[in-house]
This record gives sequence, structure tokens and C-alpha cells, in this order.
Amino acid sequence: METTEDAFLGGRLTVEQPARGYRAGIDPIVMAAAVPARPGESVLELGCGAGVASLALGARVPGLAQAALELLPEMAALARANAARNALALEVVEGDVAAMPGALKARRFDHVMLNPPWFARTASVPAADAGRETGLGEGAPLATWLAAAAKRLAPRGTLTLIHRAERLPDILSGLPASVGSPEVLPLWPRAGRAARLIVARARAGGRAAFRLHAGEVLHEGAAHPGDREHFTGRLRAVLREGAALDFPA
Amino acid sequence: METTEDAFLGGRLTVEQPARGYRAGIDPIVMAAAVPARPGESVLELGCGAGVASLALGARVPGLAQAALELLPEMAALARANAARNALALEVVEGDVAAMPGALKARRFDHVMLNPPWFARTASVPAADAGRETGLGEGAPLATWLAAAAKRLAPRGTLTLIHRAERLPDILSGLPASVGSPEVLPLWPRAGRAARLIVARARAGGRAAFRLHAGEVLHEGAAHPGDREHFTGRLRAVLREGAALDFPA
Repeated sequence: METTEDAFLGGRLTVEQPARGYRAGIDPIVMAAAVPARPGESVLELGCGAGVASLALGARVPGLAQAALELLPEMAALARANAARNALALEVVEGDVAAMPGALKARRFDHVMLNPPWFARTASVPAADAGRETGLGEGAPLATWLAAAAKRLAPRGTLTLIHRAERLPDILSGLPASVGSPEVLPLWPRAGRAARLIVARARAGGRAAFRLHAGEVLHEGAAHPGDREHFTGRLRAVLREGAALDFPA
Repeated sequence: METTEDAFLGGRLTVEQPARGYRAGIDPIVMAAAVPARPGESVLELGCGAGVASLALGARVPGLAQAALELLPEMAALARANAARNALALEVVEGDVAAMPGALKARRFDHVMLNPPWFARTASVPAADAGRETGLGEGAPLATWLAAAAKRLAPRGTLTLIHRAERLPDILSGLPASVGSPEVLPLWPRAGRAARLIVARARAGGRAAFRLHAGEVLHEGAAHPGDREHFTGRLRAVLREGAALDFPA
């Protein structure tokens, strides 16, 4: 597998990931920034790929007990190597969200995060590359991912995911009854433009009403200037300095 | 029934409505502004109360064929009187969304709009005033309102509703399979604050993905100055000049 080395969080994190196929963009970093984990708590990531989200969270919040599930053995191996390279502790378990491995099945976590595959397989031609297909195509349905996440939550534990905005109906309908208090933080590509990504959060045992937060604008200005450095100040702090992306209280 | 006379659309509309109980605020005006009706088309409103939304739409778009359903005979009578007073044609039918009257059941409309009761009855103490209870309390469940609306839509007809943002999960799950292409336009009370109201639209036979639009900020500035005239320019045009609130294409 041909790989590249990529810097995240302004160079605090260096991650080896496949040169082709699913590659981490801003979404795992933004998701990790939105997980309200505090030192000493436990976190599980479902579908960690090369480990970017888990490692970004570990770099931001010290003293976490972190585990991650990954379907593809070669990606799990990369995630382990990336954790070692960045001197972060991450337990990577190989397995399928649709059949949770015993190593995780008996445990509950204070926080679960997931950046599920983005495209329903039926809606697009499968990618030629197997890793890309697993990262982008939707093997297990979104509801299966959400159910697996909900089952791993400790009482009052939080579930955080990032997904395309158009999947919001499926996210809301796919959240099991055991989690509630759903909240959505939209990511607007530019001021005045429809949301492309959303960060969604829910809480085990939550009973509060749904909340639609104002969210964050990703890019300054009305047009794309061609390079990738025109993120708004808040997003720049998340992406380059490892700042948290707190949901409003 | 004690009533007041209230001006809407900068005085273009004068509406008599109950002094106590459900009273029209900005929501029927904003909803009517968001209905993409064109001259010559037909429109049905479910639960019209004193008729503010239907009359605002009729004042904005000439040549519509408008009908409205209202449960309470005294409110239906007010809506008819308000239509006459404003020289607008509105056929007001008395009846329940949960048991559509024959006068409407055989017909289909290019557009259906509804501003359903806002609070689930189980979540609050019923209002002492019967009209207020019907306007605010949720007699029929939201899903019943949505199903009734969907059944009255002509092919490619649009369904528009305004509701509290926290009901978005119920709106999305309550839309029957016959309507699709759901879109949400949030109304932010102020920049950076969670949405309080949403305008939702769907289309009979629609197959497009869900869209979360940037929406509109209602009030300028960070704090409420005490009177009600600090709406943003776009909202002021909708509320005072009868402008349309178009969804982005």
C-alpha cells in the first residue's frame, strides 16, 4: 500500500495514510474537536481508518483511555503505527460495527465518536480501490453504525458524529431510543450557503428537545481563492491549533 | 369573543383576531412568504385560525385560488370576515385535519401550508381558554397534520410549514413517503444563536436529498432592545412589505 505522511493540527500530529482511497480531510479533525471529553475519561471511535480523529482527540485532551474499531486490518495497522509515532495510546481493535468484537462488547465508554462512510453504496458505483470503497461506500447502513455506537455508551455518555448535512434525516431517525437530547452544529461552507457537513451529538438517556445550533462558517468570503488557507478564525484554531469546537451550553 | 384589530404587512392587511388565546405573530407571515405560489395556482392552508397566513399570501400573490381548513367555527367565521374586509377570496371550510371534510377531500392543491399547534398537549397544562388550547396545544399529532397535508397535494405540489426548531426530528419522521426533497430554512433569533423557528418544505414525489439552508437571522445585534422593530432587513421586508422569502434554488 502506497502511503503519504500528512501533518495535522499545525504539525502536532503526523499521520501516515494511504495515498489513494479514503484520506482524512477536515472532518475527523472537526469531529474530534467537538467531543466533550475530559482527562481521565474513556473514548471509543468506530471506523477509525488511519486513526486521525482519535489521535487528534488524544493530542487535545491528555489522559484519555482511547479505543478504536476498524474493519480493514491494513488500516488498523496504520492506526497503531500512527499512535506509536505520535506517542499517543490508542487501542485499535479489528472488527465490524455490525458484529462488535468481544474485546469491546463488554465495555462502555464515556464518549463514542464516528465518521461513518459517506455514500450509500446503492447510490454510486463502488470504488475500484477496496480501502476507498470501505471508507466512502456504506457497507453497514448508517442506522447500524448509530446502534453500535449507542450500545457502547456509558450512562450519560455522549455520541458525536460528523456526516454530510443531507443525511440529517437518517441520523435523527437512526438514533436508538436509548440516546436522546440530539443537537446539530451545522458547518456552512460560506456565509449564506447551505450546510455541507453537520456535527451531531446525542446523549445516553438524554431527554432534552432537539437543538439546531448556529454552527460554524468554514471559509471566509464569497468565492474559493484556490488554496486551502482561507478558513475562518474559529475553524483555523480547530484545524491548526487543536482548539475545541464546543457546542453551546 | 373579545377581539382586536391588528395590522400586518405594513398595513396592507388588517385582521380581527381574538384578544386572548392564539394570536398571530411573525410565524404565519413568514410561512406565507415562503410558499412558492404563482398567480393562477391553488393553495390550501390547514388550521388557518383567523386567516392571517392565507390572507398574507393572497395579498402577496394575486390570482390564487385559496382554501383553508379550520376546526373552530368562531375562528372560521373570523377568517371569512377577515377575507371580506381585505377584499381577498378565501374559501374557509370547517373541519378537523384528522377527518378531512368532503369539500376538500376530493381536491388537490398546488401548495399546502400549515402552522400546526406548537406544543404537545402532554408536555404542558392545557390552556384555560378553548381557542388558545386549540391554537397552542396539539390536538392531532404533528404526523396527522403532515399526512393530511400530503394527501391534498397535486403532483409536484409543495408542502410548507413553520414550526419550532426542536420539532425538526418529528417533522422529518412525520413526512409521508409520498413527499420528499425536504428542505429546512432555519430562523436564527440572532447571529450565533440556536434556531428557534424553522420553515420546512417538501414536494410531492420529490426525490432530492435533504437540504439545510443558511436561513435568516431575525433580529439585529446581540441583545433585544425592548421594542419589536429591530428585525433584520430581509425579515423587515417580509413582515412590513410583503416580500417573498425564497428558498435558495
